[in-house]
Amino acid sequence: MFNEQYDVIVVGGGHAGAEAAAAAANLGSKTLLATMNLQTIGQMSCNPAMGGIAKGQIVREMDAMGGYSGIVTDRSAIQFKMLNKSKGPAMWSPRAQNDRMRFAEEWRLMLERTPNVDFYQEMVQGLIVEGNRVVGVRTSLGLEIKAKAVILTNGTFLNGLIHIGDKQFGGGRAGEKAATGITEQLVSFGFESGRMKTGTPPRVDGRSLDYSKMIPQPGDDNPERFSFLDTPVLKEQRECYMTHTSATVHDLLKEGFDRSPMFNGRIKSIGPRYCPSIEDKINRFADKDSHQLFVEPEGWDTVEVYVNGFSTSLPEDVQFKALRSVKGFEKVKFFRPGYAIEYDYFPPTQLKHTLETKLVENLYFAGQINGTTGYEEAASQGMMAGINAHLKINEKDPFILKRDEAYIGVLIDDLITKGTEEPYRMFTSRAEYRTLLRQDNADLRLTPRSFEIGLASEERMRRMEEKERKSQAFVDFFRNTSYQPEEINPILEEVNSSTVGQADKMFKVFARPQVTMDHMMQLEKVSGFVTEHELDREVMEQAEIQVKYSGYIEKEKLNADKLQRLENINIPENFDYSKLKSLSFEAREKLEKIRPVTISQASRISGVSPSDISVLLVFLGR
Amino acid sequence: MFNEQYDVIVVGGGHAGAEAAAAAANLGSKTLLATMNLQTIGQMSCNPAMGGIAKGQIVREMDAMGGYSGIVTDRSAIQFKMLNKSKGPAMWSPRAQNDRMRFAEEWRLMLERTPNVDFYQEMVQGLIVEGNRVVGVRTSLGLEIKAKAVILTNGTFLNGLIHIGDKQFGGGRAGEKAATGITEQLVSFGFESGRMKTGTPPRVDGRSLDYSKMIPQPGDDNPERFSFLDTPVLKEQRECYMTHTSATVHDLLKEGFDRSPMFNGRIKSIGPRYCPSIEDKINRFADKDSHQLFVEPEGWDTVEVYVNGFSTSLPEDVQFKALRSVKGFEKVKFFRPGYAIEYDYFPPTQLKHTLETKLVENLYFAGQINGTTGYEEAASQGMMAGINAHLKINEKDPFILKRDEAYIGVLIDDLITKGTEEPYRMFTSRAEYRTLLRQDNADLRLTPRSFEIGLASEERMRRMEEKERKSQAFVDFFRNTSYQPEEINPILEEVNSSTVGQADKMFKVFARPQVTMDHMMQLEKVSGFVTEHELDREVMEQAEIQVKYSGYIEKEKLNADKLQRLENINIPENFDYSKLKSLSFEAREKLEKIRPVTISQASRISGVSPSDISVLLVFLGR
Ligand SMILES: Cc1cc2nc3c(=O)[nH]c(=O)nc-3n(C[C@H](O)[C@H](O)[C@H](O)COP(=O)(O)OP(=O)(O)OC[C@H]3O[C@@H](n4cnc5c(N)ncnc54)[C@H](O)[C@@H]3O)c2cc1C
Ligand SMILES: Cc1cc2nc3c(=O)[nH]c(=O)nc-3n(C[C@H](O)[C@H](O)[C@H](O)COP(=O)(O)OP(=O)(O)OC[C@H]3O[C@@H](n4cnc5c(N)ncnc54)[C@H](O)[C@@H]3O)c2cc1C
Repeated sequence: MFNEQYDVIVVGGGHAGAEAAAAAANLGSKTLLATMNLQTIGQMSCNPAMGGIAKGQIVREMDAMGGYSGIVTDRSAIQFKMLNKSKGPAMWSPRAQNDRMRFAEEWRLMLERTPNVDFYQEMVQGLIVEGNRVVGVRTSLGLEIKAKAVILTNGTFLNGLIHIGDKQFGGGRAGEKAATGITEQLVSFGFESGRMKTGTPPRVDGRSLDYSKMIPQPGDDNPERFSFLDTPVLKEQRECYMTHTSATVHDLLKEGFDRSPMFNGRIKSIGPRYCPSIEDKINRFADKDSHQLFVEPEGWDTVEVYVNGFSTSLPEDVQFKALRSVKGFEKVKFFRPGYAIEYDYFPPTQLKHTLETKLVENLYFAGQINGTTGYEEAASQGMMAGINAHLKINEKDPFILKRDEAYIGVLIDDLITKGTEEPYRMFTSRAEYRTLLRQDNADLRLTPRSFEIGLASEERMRRMEEKERKSQAFVDFFRNTSYQPEEINPILEEVNSSTVGQADKMFKVFARPQVTMDHMMQLEKVSGFVTEHELDREVMEQAEIQVKYSGYIEKEKLNADKLQRLENINIPENFDYSKLKSLSFEAREKLEKIRPVTISQASRISGVSPSDISVLLVFLGR
Repeated sequence: MFNEQYDVIVVGGGHAGAEAAAAAANLGSKTLLATMNLQTIGQMSCNPAMGGIAKGQIVREMDAMGGYSGIVTDRSAIQFKMLNKSKGPAMWSPRAQNDRMRFAEEWRLMLERTPNVDFYQEMVQGLIVEGNRVVGVRTSLGLEIKAKAVILTNGTFLNGLIHIGDKQFGGGRAGEKAATGITEQLVSFGFESGRMKTGTPPRVDGRSLDYSKMIPQPGDDNPERFSFLDTPVLKEQRECYMTHTSATVHDLLKEGFDRSPMFNGRIKSIGPRYCPSIEDKINRFADKDSHQLFVEPEGWDTVEVYVNGFSTSLPEDVQFKALRSVKGFEKVKFFRPGYAIEYDYFPPTQLKHTLETKLVENLYFAGQINGTTGYEEAASQGMMAGINAHLKINEKDPFILKRDEAYIGVLIDDLITKGTEEPYRMFTSRAEYRTLLRQDNADLRLTPRSFEIGLASEERMRRMEEKERKSQAFVDFFRNTSYQPEEINPILEEVNSSTVGQADKMFKVFARPQVTMDHMMQLEKVSGFVTEHELDREVMEQAEIQVKYSGYIEKEKLNADKLQRLENINIPENFDYSKLKSLSFEAREKLEKIRPVTISQASRISGVSPSDISVLLVFLGR
């Protein structure tokens, strides 16, 4: 039935698969998206929200490179918030609530409008491998579909097992079938696989809640967007609400602990530490007798509500009784209980930086299959796998983002270098250079790189250049233009900053923490410049950040450059570590397994000490 | 978890379940809709279209009574056609193409906005029965939910088995799990169950089709609506297309016949004769070397296309090769192959007119579980079951539509009286009084009846009364107002009807087949009346039909009244047929099984002859 050979087959239409298909196709690869159900493309398995701390940056990075997640998010958002606005801009993180149905529909339609993407609905049950190279996939009907490269993005579906209390049944997500065959085949090829688990809270009927007892969580007054393109800005928003658990709630939950698959040993795999179930939280933080719950609408019109913070696999009657004791939930009705799911993953140290597997050529893994958690983490891996699959089969250089270039670079480098024992989630703390990796400059960082390989569009590039040019000009203006004491001192007094005695460059006062762009705009020269050059909010914000954080930025750039030197020392591909007797045993074992490409990567492997690095450096003649 | 007792639990959120929940809730019953996946409520399993011949009438009937199907259809329609407009108004049948996703979403949102409907997502695995009365359901998690009445609307999900070529796997629909447990339990209660099958065509990528080789099938120039309320009228429509199979296509399909589950004996159950698979058509109509195919878009924006007329369970490679030989499909790409599905049903002779089962009190069956096929058939049963469940538990009289009142009456009476050996589909030919059962007068027929039991809203009733009053006044006007020969003769000449010599009542000429409302409107008195009384299209159409078809209508009413007399002779509930020695053996057996409520119903049982009826009549003293 599939006569032609595809360039790339993407298995799975979740966040990873959708971005993978978009990237490969937009680069020019004939791409097939094969997924179990065409009606669940881009389905949000868990919370109806995108972004958040560190994750929001990832979405912006994908968007800067021409990914779709940002556009889809903007088009289906029902609320927008820039988190951490009170902290430095390195911490600002965009987050949106989404209409779950709209989100999936937008994804599907965007992919349909992408010329090189074909679709096929069926379960893929195995790979076709010739020698050590993948050449296609085999479906549950026995169909063989040929391709030059295959990207697996199976998410939580591989031998998925759902748990609620002492009940368990096969499934990839509530109401959906699990996928079988792939793990078994990969293991027979020599891949190592493991089990992880994740969980989701109950969905409830918004009509049964008493919102007057909760604290409203409105969106921003001036909502921004994820995409650097002209996606719509929210004119209307839906409110979320906050409420809390209590000692009573915890006691009620504890009554079910003996029937909890988490505690009675039935679930052995490890769940996401930073996205714990409510029973986990109670257990780990025994001294806290209250946890926040965020009550999030699932869409513009639906009454379905997501209870963020109440993820659980306790028996459904326990979930219910406990939730009824939460303020505002006294009369709650369930749409469905929370549950946990266990699934197969493949320790990501089996991958190269391109996300190609080391064992099978042209086979890529992306998303939750690599032991990560979260839509953004999944989507960005998908995008990178899609790009690299395309480049590889066209014999082009790989596209790798470095740790000082993108959170996506940090993510993938962490995964393949350190592996992960528990579901990996991105945090700002994982990035060494987070003042460089801001959400506001994702385009400046990444659009040119993506444009170079032919992915980011001309339009993105043009917009980025204009933003760069204008903000640079504005920064230069502050550097070169002087203020008069009499015009600036009233402002300085107002913000309790020491006044000045003589004229000086504006840059100097503007760099003071208390002085904002709003203050500077009170100076006629500044507002005149803005009007004359038609500077928009984005450009003004960019210039402000560059003025105010120039010190930090410079310092991080220097650090990154320093490290870059180690980054430039390559380790030969088949380097024989057994020759280096003075390496510690653990270091040798890890180095042989991970096979780092550079000294810098080697230094990030846990168990490889600075003295091991010295040994390596000496041997490599540095 | 479910502390409170519901009035009505509806199992399944397909068309039957959705209408059942709406009806019961709107009448005031606390209703729970328990379904396997809340994201597939109102899902169209097969073609994205509602209505059509006889089926369109059913949708109008449901709407007249306050059902939601008509409103959902109007809100999600992408094309509207009044079929059979060239024939008499008894044959006019509205049909809409729908946006599949919008349709399901509209259903879900309408139900969410219905105050008495609660939702719960899980598989129901059994009933809780006390004595011979149902008191609740048991879910797959072991949850017990209590209710006064339960309506089962499991559709094609009970032990569903999907077939494609020689492959088969469990499922309720492609990509969805089958439901288990219910059949087994019901059989243990003494219910008889059977297997039926149905099929669906492949879904294809619209971008791979060459529409220039097909015949466009646009919607009506002045699209109408399904609902009698003010639903939106289509301003824009999507085109469908027509193409044909050929001898080559048939030959290619025949190559797969030995691997067809239909022909090699793997599928034993009977499929819908009037909605046959393409392999069936080729087999049964061996002399025809071409069949029509309708190429229908699945929505406003999606490229997914439905190939109406190409339902098949042949191996997917055979489907593909054959479809590629169809004009316009030379480069077709599949989204997914067609398939057949076998599922359990319960012969509907086990039901009363209310759709309550005879064996278990307060248990109702509606939809495909009763051996029917089609959304409209399912939805209308659901509505009637929902109404009757509510009435029963409130100790009110049952709500039964007679054969001269509604297609829905014909449908249910056929099902419970005659049973069905193959998937039952509604046709106009099944109705004895089809001049009475028109789509245009569904409101006049049924809104008052539904209003009486408190279901149809005040607004519907008011609108219906206004339409009735105005159209009656207009008919009276034609009866009482005379024309002058000089004004009418030019018109008569124009339409080749014999001219008149003297003035007479307008009714007389208007009753002539060639003379239309448009002609009559040329008379100043007529157009003056229309303007003065602000008559809209609907009223004018109604009046026209009543003038032109008054003869037929009167005749059918007389016939119906005559039959009504037999209808009024009740047979006592526990009537002992064994006492009537002169009944034929077959008649006795059937009468004992079906237990007709009236002599009229008895007469419709196949195997019960007129002489058997005489025996009964004599015994009952008539
Ligand atoms: C119950 C649950 C709770 C979660 N909780 C959280 C949370 O609290 N926080 C958080 O950040 N993240 C959470 N997640 C994770 C988040 O949903 C995932 O990280 C993200 O969806 C992963 O994206 P993905 O593309 O890798 O896989 P998925 O979104 O799982 O998509 C996988 C896709 O592949 C398809 N597929 C799988 N196997 C096959 C096959 N063999 N053939 C064809 N198609 C196939 C599936 O149909 C699906 O479309 C949760 C997920 C689940 C299921
Ligand atoms: C492959 C296929 C082809 C078809 N072809 C045609 C055709 O050509 N022409 C035509 O007119 N009709 C066709 N139909 C039939 C049409 O889809 C049905 O007649 C109509 O959908 C029946 O409506 P229903 O409400 O009875 O059941 P369905 O629409 O099947 O809905 C059943 C619902 O019940 C839920 N459910 C089932 N069991 C349980 C349980 N135990 N617990 C909880 N929830 C449960 C399901 O999730 C689903 O929501 C086809 C159907 C299928 C599947």
